[in-house]
Amino acid sequence: MQDARFDILGIGNAIVDVVAPCDHGFLSKHDMHPGSMRLIDAAAAEALYAAMPPGTESSGGSAANTCAVAAGLGARVAFQGKVAQDQLGAVFRHDITAARVHFPTSPLAGGAPTARCLILVTPDGQRTMNTFLGACVMFDESDLLIADIEEAKVTYLEGYLFDPPYAQAAFVRAARAARAAGRQVALSLSDPFCVDRHRAAFLDLLADVDILFANEAEICSLYETPDFADAMVAARADVQLAALTQSEQGSVILSGDEVFAIAAAPAKLVDSTGAGDAYAAGFLTAYTAGRDLPACGRLGSLAAAAVIEHYGARPRTDLRALAAQ
Amino acid sequence: MQDARFDILGIGNAIVDVVAPCDHGFLSKHDMHPGSMRLIDAAAAEALYAAMPPGTESSGGSAANTCAVAAGLGARVAFQGKVAQDQLGAVFRHDITAARVHFPTSPLAGGAPTARCLILVTPDGQRTMNTFLGACVMFDESDLLIADIEEAKVTYLEGYLFDPPYAQAAFVRAARAARAAGRQVALSLSDPFCVDRHRAAFLDLLADVDILFANEAEICSLYETPDFADAMVAARADVQLAALTQSEQGSVILSGDEVFAIAAAPAKLVDSTGAGDAYAAGFLTAYTAGRDLPACGRLGSLAAAAVIEHYGARPRTDLRALAAQ
Repeated sequence: MQDARFDILGIGNAIVDVVAPCDHGFLSKHDMHPGSMRLIDAAAAEALYAAMPPGTESSGGSAANTCAVAAGLGARVAFQGKVAQDQLGAVFRHDITAARVHFPTSPLAGGAPTARCLILVTPDGQRTMNTFLGACVMFDESDLLIADIEEAKVTYLEGYLFDPPYAQAAFVRAARAARAAGRQVALSLSDPFCVDRHRAAFLDLLADVDILFANEAEICSLYETPDFADAMVAARADVQLAALTQSEQGSVILSGDEVFAIAAAPAKLVDSTGAGDAYAAGFLTAYTAGRDLPACGRLGSLAAAAVIEHYGARPRTDLRALAAQ
Repeated sequence: MQDARFDILGIGNAIVDVVAPCDHGFLSKHDMHPGSMRLIDAAAAEALYAAMPPGTESSGGSAANTCAVAAGLGARVAFQGKVAQDQLGAVFRHDITAARVHFPTSPLAGGAPTARCLILVTPDGQRTMNTFLGACVMFDESDLLIADIEEAKVTYLEGYLFDPPYAQAAFVRAARAARAAGRQVALSLSDPFCVDRHRAAFLDLLADVDILFANEAEICSLYETPDFADAMVAARADVQLAALTQSEQGSVILSGDEVFAIAAAPAKLVDSTGAGDAYAAGFLTAYTAGRDLPACGRLGSLAAAAVIEHYGARPRTDLRALAAQ
């Protein structure tokens, strides 16, 4: 892979997470589908926040999490996403910058506040997310820094970015700019309901995607099949490389005629928030360093294990030891 | 003890904590005294934040932590303290309210932002704190809700509130109002350097204090002695009840001629932030429920153990099981 200024450039929603524990009764009382992400407006966010237990705030956003973990693993990383000019925006900017991620996107002045995701973690470690997109809805093509995209080995796009109204066009433009510069494009499907909302657009985009990340529910949603084996066959026909995760069962990497089964790394599950993001980070860090596919999957598994043992989507510890493995 | 609307009413700085891990080299590079609290201005807060690793935000403030833990243990609790009308102020209000603490103080509109404390946690679990007081400096006598103070069994004052310029007068007035209503007053010394800054005022206030909380360093600072035994003798002469904590060695309760030695509860130390606050919460919850002094100390130890096993000063779990013990 040709050298570049960045190994990975992520584009996604710039979100601050508010994480609190709850029981399953709280989820059903507030009509949440366990393990999913739903979009809520400002009024619903306020009402749900008022009903929630005390929380902990930390920077989140799917691609942003991936970027922070990859930088912790030693990759050279950039991120593009929209925060507002407010306290939570300052928190997001601090955290991603302190994680050694280049983050040049200018904040939104006035208008909506920085996006937040109200995350309820049930005793089984599953996270259920309620996202108020806030300033993210203003991310559009004019926010893309094409020169940086052209200088990144892999441009990584989160599926959630299909939800904000102007971001889809930016998404497609970023993918094509990366491809035109001889770079690669990775896409994460993010969530089965997100896939359901934007299935046709996702399938169209696959023509410009080199590496697809998805979990079992997401890839089955994309191809509208309940059968993972069928979904694998369909994915193999659509992309040259797919990494499909299956929680504690590990992951499957599909590359042309090759299939690699990768075990999950042992971990004591506390909060699964960010597991898929961290897997993509580990995978892409190894991939852009020229490692073989099983090594990419193994670093993905190790990175995922490192974030599910505590509350929050980003690592608490120095990850360079993982990368050395 | 005569019944009242509240068991405990805390008055203190209303602060959002920003917690990040660091090594001892980072502390010395930034001239921090390990384990202490120092006050910093807005510019220093910005510079230190920029240099800090990625953090996690959660509601803090010494007396506010005590209030949240006590409410979790089943006590009826109120808190008075000043936040600004901003995002971090909304976070503080949400968390203390969600912890079932009555919090009627109106926010500061315009002016300084909500206070924050940049907390660096070293690998030994010790926390070193850098407080930007923000809106707290505007807390004054007009913020006191005297009717609530008169309706609380114990009014609990944090020593840190001696630092904001207008709060000392409010502090003295609150203590006297509580006493005049036949209620009791508890004081936490908060920090040896805070004691050093305000020693004469603290010694004056003891005339209006029924219950004194301090750790070894704080009580030795108050009486300017390196000897804990000497400090105990002095404290016994000044207050009718003192609970003096000694980290993993537990605590000593002094009441007239009686002395009770209380063991620490077993815990795996991750972050000592909030240990003293939680001890006071456990102690006062049992005390206002009419339990004997050793039982008060034991609930203090259990509550402290519950918060030092994770990052942050407030409990992550339901504490009512502790109270049942």
